[in-house]
Amino acid sequence: MGRIITIGREFGSGGREVGRRIADELHIAYYDSEILEEIVKKTPYSEEYIEEITHGRPISLFPIHYANSWGPVVDPHFQQAIDVYQEQTKILKELATKSDCVIIGRCADYVLRDMNPFRIFVYSDTKSKIERCESKGKEGEPLTEKQMIKRIRYVDKKRRQYYEFYTGQKWGARENYDLMINTANSDIKKVAKMVAKLFD
Amino acid sequence: MGRIITIGREFGSGGREVGRRIADELHIAYYDSEILEEIVKKTPYSEEYIEEITHGRPISLFPIHYANSWGPVVDPHFQQAIDVYQEQTKILKELATKSDCVIIGRCADYVLRDMNPFRIFVYSDTKSKIERCESKGKEGEPLTEKQMIKRIRYVDKKRRQYYEFYTGQKWGARENYDLMINTANSDIKKVAKMVAKLFD
Repeated sequence: MGRIITIGREFGSGGREVGRRIADELHIAYYDSEILEEIVKKTPYSEEYIEEITHGRPISLFPIHYANSWGPVVDPHFQQAIDVYQEQTKILKELATKSDCVIIGRCADYVLRDMNPFRIFVYSDTKSKIERCESKGKEGEPLTEKQMIKRIRYVDKKRRQYYEFYTGQKWGARENYDLMINTANSDIKKVAKMVAKLFD
Repeated sequence: MGRIITIGREFGSGGREVGRRIADELHIAYYDSEILEEIVKKTPYSEEYIEEITHGRPISLFPIHYANSWGPVVDPHFQQAIDVYQEQTKILKELATKSDCVIIGRCADYVLRDMNPFRIFVYSDTKSKIERCESKGKEGEPLTEKQMIKRIRYVDKKRRQYYEFYTGQKWGARENYDLMINTANSDIKKVAKMVAKLFD
């Protein structure tokens, strides 16, 4: 079995930690924010802007009647999102060709489908997500529980839209993954050891 | 973590083999047809009849206008299905109380929810299911591929209806399971060793 492992995940489910620990167990590379840094190097856009357009599907800001007789007008914002996705695709393929690795998010399961990656999806229930978000909360004004639930739903909605726009597949639907892990009642260290066992 | 492990599964996905191997790895009891045998002992119905009414939701054979002024008429077929389900529930609880175990199907994840079981769902793609069915085929006239696909869909439809009728939950929906395993590209022996690792 190849050891290209991709991790899709719900916000607050600990998917990133699962991925990092699997990479540690298997002594293979781990790519998450490293990919963003690579995109920054290879495109003219800022980190913040790339962050923004790689969350959610690209939205055209121009109304449809902007099209004129010389052909359709392409919204530059929309085009930039597509450019970034294409650059990201190239980077993912380069990284996965270089060595075994764990890759977080970024439709890597779909982008690398010809390399037969092991596709994991990590999810959890709302209660556990809130607890995780609380324990990992950034400094400053803490969010109320209601605000946190809103945030969790918002981020997952954006992830779903992003994934479904670029892959044409349903995000979190079992047929698109090899293993789906619910972290609500699980010890993430054990989960990582469990997954690593499959690659023994 | 408790070691009551329940296995929901798509037909032809190898869920039964996954369960049996996990039980072997952990040296715990394994219950599948044993439950059916217990129900036969404890109810007046034949094995074949119980098999029939524990596949799919109970269907009332009486049209609704059979109800009369003395109260609703209960279709005996429907009532028998409910009786068998209740007997099965009792048996499942007795078995799970007796010792750690793996239980195949029978809404055990839902029935034993107060015992905090580890809930696995095993699934696969159609191609792998056909291969598995072919390799495990019973003697006699072999089914064509088309017939096999029809059979796979039919059994899964019945399983879904049975599960959803008695639990009110969606069959195969990730929120109802702790771990979902796609056996399409996996070695089942390795999968069982992987799951056992979680209980180390």
